[in-house]
Amino acid sequence: VRRFLPLLAAMLAMPALAQDAAEPPTPASVVAAAPASDWRAIEPADLLVMTLAPDRDGNPRQVVIQLVPAPFSQGWVGNIRALAKAHWWDGMTVYRVVDNWVAQWGAGEDEEGKSKPLPEGLRVVSESEYTSTQLDIQLAGLEERTPEMERAVRQAVEAAQPDPREDEMTADITSTRTRQAREGWHERDSYSTWVEFFESWPVGNDSRPDADSEFWPVHCYASVGVARDLSPDTGTGAELYAVIGHAPRQLDRNIAVVGRVIEGIEHLATLPRGKGEAGVYDDPALRVPIISVRLGDELPEAERPRFRYLGSDTASFAEYVRVRAKRNDSFYNVPAGGIDVCNVQVPIQRRVAEPK
Amino acid sequence: VRRFLPLLAAMLAMPALAQDAAEPPTPASVVAAAPASDWRAIEPADLLVMTLAPDRDGNPRQVVIQLVPAPFSQGWVGNIRALAKAHWWDGMTVYRVVDNWVAQWGAGEDEEGKSKPLPEGLRVVSESEYTSTQLDIQLAGLEERTPEMERAVRQAVEAAQPDPREDEMTADITSTRTRQAREGWHERDSYSTWVEFFESWPVGNDSRPDADSEFWPVHCYASVGVARDLSPDTGTGAELYAVIGHAPRQLDRNIAVVGRVIEGIEHLATLPRGKGEAGVYDDPALRVPIISVRLGDELPEAERPRFRYLGSDTASFAEYVRVRAKRNDSFYNVPAGGIDVCNVQVPIQRRVAEPK
Repeated sequence: VRRFLPLLAAMLAMPALAQDAAEPPTPASVVAAAPASDWRAIEPADLLVMTLAPDRDGNPRQVVIQLVPAPFSQGWVGNIRALAKAHWWDGMTVYRVVDNWVAQWGAGEDEEGKSKPLPEGLRVVSESEYTSTQLDIQLAGLEERTPEMERAVRQAVEAAQPDPREDEMTADITSTRTRQAREGWHERDSYSTWVEFFESWPVGNDSRPDADSEFWPVHCYASVGVARDLSPDTGTGAELYAVIGHAPRQLDRNIAVVGRVIEGIEHLATLPRGKGEAGVYDDPALRVPIISVRLGDELPEAERPRFRYLGSDTASFAEYVRVRAKRNDSFYNVPAGGIDVCNVQVPIQRRVAEPK
Repeated sequence: VRRFLPLLAAMLAMPALAQDAAEPPTPASVVAAAPASDWRAIEPADLLVMTLAPDRDGNPRQVVIQLVPAPFSQGWVGNIRALAKAHWWDGMTVYRVVDNWVAQWGAGEDEEGKSKPLPEGLRVVSESEYTSTQLDIQLAGLEERTPEMERAVRQAVEAAQPDPREDEMTADITSTRTRQAREGWHERDSYSTWVEFFESWPVGNDSRPDADSEFWPVHCYASVGVARDLSPDTGTGAELYAVIGHAPRQLDRNIAVVGRVIEGIEHLATLPRGKGEAGVYDDPALRVPIISVRLGDELPEAERPRFRYLGSDTASFAEYVRVRAKRNDSFYNVPAGGIDVCNVQVPIQRRVAEPK
């Protein structure tokens, strides 16, 4: 028998089990207990389905990407929709993989190295669109909250703060600078004044007392961004990367985050690392052919991907973050007290098709 | 021709190039300019060399792990040395791989599923050894610094702070609470009062005005830790994991960090993810045989791994962190201002053998 059971990730990776009365809540138990009304459907039109060639054992490889919602990166997202509708990526390859960094595809060359012109009508998008000031307004509109939800959110915010920062956070919560904290959990980090969630996407912001705050979607594991050349407006959305390592947050505000892989990231993360310049495969045989990339709503009804996410404006989400930040179930001895925004891991589930 | 050059990581992943006079320093240029005296040799005795079976194309797979120095985790490190000397891992397997989490080996069963008793004399190590209060004393001994180094460190600390926190950081720098900041860069984060570097290892601490501060080595990408069962003293060091995703900092102080993979992490990170319970390979054919694990000084002279790291007590290291936290070379438009401790990526290099 195996003497040392691999319990390390059991509470994180396992499906929810029946909750023992004596056991404190776990992230899985909070997710399992969330009412159906706390879940939001992801429209198939907001998903990209990338089908890679099967692996060498013939196993299928499908990667599903959720596109980031307005007000973020919509110039590039529009280009990406146009590229998908033109079937532009079909026959391209994943051609660059760097350990603890990114896997990248869509270099404009197909498997045989033939270059492929971009479709007409793509926008040149300015670097000013890396951030948005519109979120302040949208979050300010979220004031309609039940007293119950307000209590849960407040408790979560307070419980998530470790001692040294408690005073300062409490002070800030009542100031105008933290208007954007209304949706629930927020925390300072090294890359922004606050990180928080908007429609269940992690966003950073720099709070400025004398101007509108800027918000931006942050890079986490499995984030998808627009590769570009040195000039910041050179990325069209045709060439994309997915993060396969520790969150490269220094790229925030320097490159457009346009989506996140919500299923199949392992098909990119396990690819051999490139040994050519900047991690490009020097051996063309290593390039991974892309069979097709489709918007979810272009697929036949039966094949459309159906997913849902736990809304970041719900009491369930606030409780989920609180529990993740203060693990005190049986494996944990010392609750962390805080949590890195990229360790929150928004609950996203594949939905079973509704009965007719 | 490829129209969109994959420059994304060029400045991070590329070897240092001749520096253009007009170009600000990059992490690579700082590392290239560091004098030999800023580098420290890693003793072969402090390295574990794990040789996995070749991959299916016959390519060799070697993983080199640096063991964490005193005062951290030395009970487990002692057990690991004893296990390596007993050749205990030879014939074991990497048997569990979870995406964005860990690869794990040494379950006590060999390739044929035969269980193998542990060698005599392993210590049972208490969870009290997850942290140490000894570092306060050691760091307090680092007061001998040249005025030049002091200036560089001070500039780096000041330059690395984004505006909202500047006042508070400056105030803290002069207080007794931040004695441990002497080695150079430090920053607050969600998981500890301060994170900083000790002998080029990332460490967290909780500063307590009324007691000795506790310090602990933090989990980053490629960190190696001791898997255990629910009871915190059940990990011997025989079963180990390496982090292959975003830093699971919630494990800090809950599990022993005993080392870090300094070469070959890709041989673990690219392994297929397990589909059994908690990511264990349900198909035994997927298990990756471990040919051998040796302490570096047990290898014949010519095969001994020789590495060096940039000392975190040097001006070069302070400048390296400053530049990484405020990238303003040609690709970057918005310098982050701060940096996550796990994004510092301590410079570690394989050394060319000295001429005789």
